[in-house]
Amino acid sequence: MGKKPEQLWTAPAREILRADPDSPIADLDRNGTPGFIGKKADGKRQLEERGAVLAELQELLYANGRSGDERSILLVLQGMDTSGKGGMVRHVIGHVDPQGVDHTAFGVPTANEKRHHFLWRIEKALPRAGQLGVFDRSHYEDVLVARVDDLVPKKVWQGRYKEINNFEKELVNRGTTIVKVAMFVSLDEQKERLQERLERPDKYWKYSPGDVTARKRWPEYRKAYQAMLDRTNTDYAPWYVVPADRKWYSRIAVTELLIDAFERLDLDWPPADFDIEKEKRRLAAS
Amino acid sequence: MGKKPEQLWTAPAREILRADPDSPIADLDRNGTPGFIGKKADGKRQLEERGAVLAELQELLYANGRSGDERSILLVLQGMDTSGKGGMVRHVIGHVDPQGVDHTAFGVPTANEKRHHFLWRIEKALPRAGQLGVFDRSHYEDVLVARVDDLVPKKVWQGRYKEINNFEKELVNRGTTIVKVAMFVSLDEQKERLQERLERPDKYWKYSPGDVTARKRWPEYRKAYQAMLDRTNTDYAPWYVVPADRKWYSRIAVTELLIDAFERLDLDWPPADFDIEKEKRRLAAS
Repeated sequence: MGKKPEQLWTAPAREILRADPDSPIADLDRNGTPGFIGKKADGKRQLEERGAVLAELQELLYANGRSGDERSILLVLQGMDTSGKGGMVRHVIGHVDPQGVDHTAFGVPTANEKRHHFLWRIEKALPRAGQLGVFDRSHYEDVLVARVDDLVPKKVWQGRYKEINNFEKELVNRGTTIVKVAMFVSLDEQKERLQERLERPDKYWKYSPGDVTARKRWPEYRKAYQAMLDRTNTDYAPWYVVPADRKWYSRIAVTELLIDAFERLDLDWPPADFDIEKEKRRLAAS
Repeated sequence: MGKKPEQLWTAPAREILRADPDSPIADLDRNGTPGFIGKKADGKRQLEERGAVLAELQELLYANGRSGDERSILLVLQGMDTSGKGGMVRHVIGHVDPQGVDHTAFGVPTANEKRHHFLWRIEKALPRAGQLGVFDRSHYEDVLVARVDDLVPKKVWQGRYKEINNFEKELVNRGTTIVKVAMFVSLDEQKERLQERLERPDKYWKYSPGDVTARKRWPEYRKAYQAMLDRTNTDYAPWYVVPADRKWYSRIAVTELLIDAFERLDLDWPPADFDIEKEKRRLAAS
């Protein structure tokens, strides 16, 4: 028997990974496993054990959603190419019932999306009552790539931090718990992952020449990420900073963050909204 | 070592389960396991093995979708309450990457949906290129409950069979493979499953008094299901009839039907749309 999940963390992931203005991402050990005492094998076992817990909690939320509870959870994943956002969806969100997941991957805005306010396409993709929403990239692209690539004037992206905070506050007030995760992979590890995509024909489709272009602009991206963390790390929608060189670590870390978010909803099975004894008799007679 | 998956079927599931006008559902053994030689334990093992195959095929489709292939697959699940549609999503679709799944559960039409043509909400939920779409209930409700409960005049629902066939033909022409599955549970097994929902507080939310009402009208529903099968079992969008008293059987049967649909797309990994050697040099220098 291995150690219990809670014995493998020095403190809750939400405390250890919470973005902190005194710990800039320039100093982050992207190969680290902060707060986790175990090794890779412990992490892999924990992912299965805690993934099952996550699945149970998600079913509870779904059941409540079907019974009139308006609440939902939204996981926002941000990170450079190869930071493991896709694998996070597959290996963490893959534990829960697909019926309960509202997943959206946000790419380069379409011509139609560009004609609208940057939050227009986000609003349309928000999780419904009882659902676990997952954003693979998000409205934060509009203060990241939009800033680094000068897609809009400085004045415009500068105003967006506040717009985002207001938007998220309203969301939270409407009953959505927002879990924002910024994943950071080191340049060395990123190079290896991109090399693999160039060497394996089953991975070509994941590669884009733009990945190397963005890689060269990491110093500018780092600044944009830091500004994002500094300016939108609110109490109602906090950021968590997750080192992503070790995929197994980032996956259990996000699993813990999600479990924590679900547990804070303090859910129970919804009571029957019908007369149980009467229905038993009706059923028996049918 | 157990037998290989293909040794456990007397013939491909798509042949055995294809709806057949000479085998009316009144004669269906809903407790049967047609075509499958193994027992429950074999079935459970097969679900894991073949679920992994399904996951690989889905990734291939997703990769091609990202590379310009417009094709998609749509699984349509129809069946009375407790026939196991939800469990099908959880235990079969749960094997594949959530990113590649466009899942929609269709409930009673909303006021807004009622103002539109019955295919309006369906059109909006169709799978995108490269996606596996899953409909838990579908446009077929509009010739099932709509017919049994007289929700629209006879003339209206009678015209819908042809409308549905035309709609599906267009869909297929646009590159969607449609896999339609009608699941049938026996009245005895249904009673047991409903009883369980009335006895376990973690299942109350799945129960609705309407389930018993519909149950009492099974003869009328059977007629409506038979008409649906007779009139919309086209070559381009065939129906499969799946006995659903044994959940493990219905799940491996649908897994096989899906694998077959994916394999007929004859997919390969998309070729690189960039100069591989040049990109290796750019990456090395970055």
